[in-house]
Amino acid sequence: MSGSLVVVGTGPGKAELMTPATLAALAKATDLVGYGPYLDRIPATRPEQRRHASDNRVELERARHALSLAAAGREVVVVSGGDPGVFAMAAAVFEAVETGDPAWRALDIRVEPGVTAMLAAAAEVGAPLGGDFCAISLSDNLKAWATIERRLRAAAEADFVIALYNPASKARPHQLAQAFELLRTIKAGYTPVLFVRAAGTAEATVIATTLAAADAAQADMRTLVIVGASTTRRIGRWVYTPRGATP
Amino acid sequence: MSGSLVVVGTGPGKAELMTPATLAALAKATDLVGYGPYLDRIPATRPEQRRHASDNRVELERARHALSLAAAGREVVVVSGGDPGVFAMAAAVFEAVETGDPAWRALDIRVEPGVTAMLAAAAEVGAPLGGDFCAISLSDNLKAWATIERRLRAAAEADFVIALYNPASKARPHQLAQAFELLRTIKAGYTPVLFVRAAGTAEATVIATTLAAADAAQADMRTLVIVGASTTRRIGRWVYTPRGATP
Repeated sequence: MSGSLVVVGTGPGKAELMTPATLAALAKATDLVGYGPYLDRIPATRPEQRRHASDNRVELERARHALSLAAAGREVVVVSGGDPGVFAMAAAVFEAVETGDPAWRALDIRVEPGVTAMLAAAAEVGAPLGGDFCAISLSDNLKAWATIERRLRAAAEADFVIALYNPASKARPHQLAQAFELLRTIKAGYTPVLFVRAAGTAEATVIATTLAAADAAQADMRTLVIVGASTTRRIGRWVYTPRGATP
Repeated sequence: MSGSLVVVGTGPGKAELMTPATLAALAKATDLVGYGPYLDRIPATRPEQRRHASDNRVELERARHALSLAAAGREVVVVSGGDPGVFAMAAAVFEAVETGDPAWRALDIRVEPGVTAMLAAAAEVGAPLGGDFCAISLSDNLKAWATIERRLRAAAEADFVIALYNPASKARPHQLAQAFELLRTIKAGYTPVLFVRAAGTAEATVIATTLAAADAAQADMRTLVIVGASTTRRIGRWVYTPRGATP
């Protein structure tokens, strides 16, 4: 009597950005496991469906709980925001599989892709990710700040567009300012910088500025920050990166 | 009498991975503009809806055509695969706005995000994009190969997971092999490499190998290639990158 586990992402927030495949997986589940605010986005479909809400920053524990439920025969869906594979629950689930009960390796596990925050943020402002780009999480909960700085430097020197996830939190108020300081030593001051808050929701707001003027205090936990490449351009309210090196 | 222009992505292929927001935009359109095979994915909803199919590699021309239709009062949707902001039509539309008829700047333009190929490819194999990652298009139609090599080197040296879009085409059969050669000078031979073909469709196939053994001939135009970071791990049929530096 073995169940299943599907890892899904709700997308950035609006129901219209959740894929039908994810909605179908949610509708079939006997148990939903996730961070409370993400579970709150899911419409109630089956009265007998159990919801296991947990706190943020307990990803591995939450993943183990979901795997135990699946091993006990439940049809479990683990709910992330955005895409579950980008700074979200899918990696935690596989880490729990690797380090946990060997029987979990035989479980029926599936990942459903979703719309990750940087895509929703990019769409709010135009097409800033139109060229080569990278995604860096500024959270140093799980990796050294030196690693983050090394990646920021490499990304700036090779002229990638840079999407910064988790740019700020109450526990880490100074890191985005440090990141901007580092990037200013490599990239031009007029490089477009975008603070996109609550992208893909009805409350989305955009601050379009430059690297020279960017104020880290304008980011919070719901903000995604995009730092342009040398070719990234502003036309009116739009920002885009041409597909080639020179437009 | 001014129309509107929405740039959408169909997602990787399966209808279940197209967002409801994109489907709603398609249903409202008087005109669909896009590469033929992407238009073929769209269910016919309104008999009076006009479809303007064009060839691949004429993005800017197609964007101008769409903008002229919108300027003439039509409700136009430009159709990309995947997410329209990632190596797709959104950047071409804004490039056409910048370089075209000044009246186009006043048009009602919107971008709808979608599920881009690397997210669908990652979901097929587990969570290889679980850490910091970058996306590089290997196509040198619009940028110099030297720029691509510089970005590959930087991404490898800073230990990003690397997603390679457009890894191969008939016109460019040797570039992926060159990219692997370059990466082998920096990354360990046992680094996981994934060839994910037709991700997010019913015909999806996966080849999981290593950088030492990776054979560029196994990629075609429908393949997305993911090269792991130093922490990327394989457990059974799954590949994942732990969220932190050390699992």
